[in-house]
Amino acid sequence: MNTRITQLFGIEKPIIQAGMIWCSGWELASAVSNAGGLGMIGSGSMYPDILRIHLEKCKAATNLPFAVNLPLLYPQIEDHIQLIIDAGVPIVFTSAGNPATYCKRFKDAGIKVVHVVSSTKFALKAQEAGCDAVVAEGFEAGGHNGREETTTLCLVPRVAEILDIPVIAAGGIYNGATMLAALAMGADAVQVGSRFVASLESSAHEAFKQKVVSAKEGDTLLTLKEITPVRLIKNEFYSRLAKAYEQGASQADLVELLGRGRAKKGMFEGDLIEGELEIGQVSASLDQILPAAEIVDQMMRECKASALHIQSLF
Amino acid sequence: MNTRITQLFGIEKPIIQAGMIWCSGWELASAVSNAGGLGMIGSGSMYPDILRIHLEKCKAATNLPFAVNLPLLYPQIEDHIQLIIDAGVPIVFTSAGNPATYCKRFKDAGIKVVHVVSSTKFALKAQEAGCDAVVAEGFEAGGHNGREETTTLCLVPRVAEILDIPVIAAGGIYNGATMLAALAMGADAVQVGSRFVASLESSAHEAFKQKVVSAKEGDTLLTLKEITPVRLIKNEFYSRLAKAYEQGASQADLVELLGRGRAKKGMFEGDLIEGELEIGQVSASLDQILPAAEIVDQMMRECKASALHIQSLF
Repeated sequence: MNTRITQLFGIEKPIIQAGMIWCSGWELASAVSNAGGLGMIGSGSMYPDILRIHLEKCKAATNLPFAVNLPLLYPQIEDHIQLIIDAGVPIVFTSAGNPATYCKRFKDAGIKVVHVVSSTKFALKAQEAGCDAVVAEGFEAGGHNGREETTTLCLVPRVAEILDIPVIAAGGIYNGATMLAALAMGADAVQVGSRFVASLESSAHEAFKQKVVSAKEGDTLLTLKEITPVRLIKNEFYSRLAKAYEQGASQADLVELLGRGRAKKGMFEGDLIEGELEIGQVSASLDQILPAAEIVDQMMRECKASALHIQSLF
Repeated sequence: MNTRITQLFGIEKPIIQAGMIWCSGWELASAVSNAGGLGMIGSGSMYPDILRIHLEKCKAATNLPFAVNLPLLYPQIEDHIQLIIDAGVPIVFTSAGNPATYCKRFKDAGIKVVHVVSSTKFALKAQEAGCDAVVAEGFEAGGHNGREETTTLCLVPRVAEILDIPVIAAGGIYNGATMLAALAMGADAVQVGSRFVASLESSAHEAFKQKVVSAKEGDTLLTLKEITPVRLIKNEFYSRLAKAYEQGASQADLVELLGRGRAKKGMFEGDLIEGELEIGQVSASLDQILPAAEIVDQMMRECKASALHIQSLF
């Protein structure tokens, strides 16, 4: 396949593995890149010393391009930026912050910059800031998300129409049919998160992976909009949150109840009761934990089959 | 185009105009059917005597198939059913209730039955009840909607995979790109609501139509889940609702605040302040009020262009 994104990144297949805290280290990133997609290290859950190790191991495991996801509100961001530049990482995906602040610095170092947005307004800002592409991420996506609740089907066609730079669709994409749907919306590639959480190479805890592939329709929801909106699986921790909402909890109450380290606890340590279990709505459609390369191959095969089906309708 | 739905209904184009209260009378329904799609009378806002007139006028205005949408919780449902059967309406779309109760009766009268669902569970129930097809409607759709918040991109591929009967995608579909995306998800046709609210032949009040085409991203939301979930435009009435929620309103408080007749007030009488303004997220992407036939033609042209673009990627 040949799209503006495969050309921009120098990759074979327009499938990008989302950089996800606690789930996407060098093993997953290199596996996806070696399969012809774009693998990505999620640096938001790593101390600089840990990121350094993941960068070294990823470079040793693949000669193909890979990316790093960098949340712009990360406390030790200067250390992360220096590590990324020193390691010669060719592509950075920034999220959760203003892309204008760091875009030029990466570009001056020859790094391609992609910013994650959940609205047309921020998509335009990313383009103005000089980003090479945007990820347009819909309401159904797992983890942190926009307040407007705009779904992938409503967001991506509009962003693709308005922007000149390439658009990567995210949220709700997990197989060939949804991949082709995203391309039909005008996207140049897809970013896939939840499906890769449920991969062999994902660093998510096995208990969390099992929870993901057994989730049913309606099991996730977008909550904590007063702090940072996040889509997660309803569990015991969420029940307490829901009760707090019912009792009219203030923002400070919610911050206290959330506490610190719940994402790590749930996704990395496998505490399904007290942890924050971030995952997308498509978890309801997942039922298998597969090697990352098989996920990439399956999606490409299915996408081609869906494209042939579409042709037969005309 | 040729899909299982164009064959089932005997129509030329797989575009179905949603049956919408206060917006879709005989003028809109006959215009869409005459343009080669499937027009639909929304009977939920009509007394039986009014429905009788719309049925007569619709039959006089088109020789092509049209449908009636029948909410199964409608108080005078027996009168409506008899009118539909007597008028020889070929297709009925049922919603908001258990399809099993009336499906056989319509089928015995030679009428094709389609049920609207927002989850896989109810899609399977509709198939078991003997329905000829389902509409799988996502979170982004306007008006009444499911509690699970499953988006069109997450719902349609799954329903299409599990069901044997044809699937019509609804929610977030307004142009050729989103129509092709729905077909890529495995749908056999699309149901379009908001776009046809903003048509010349829609019976919505002109002030509501203008409000729809000037809506921006984030202007609608799904609310009133304690009564019946509904997506509407945030206006002064909604602000009072939001305040009631903040103050911990009970279900009874909400029912009282909602009162009666707000949908008519907003959508038919054009009271943008006190009315309930039901519309989908795609309102943010709409900027023109066009004749229904032009909407159908434009969608078909764009859909073919998008299909050619998709082919060029492989």
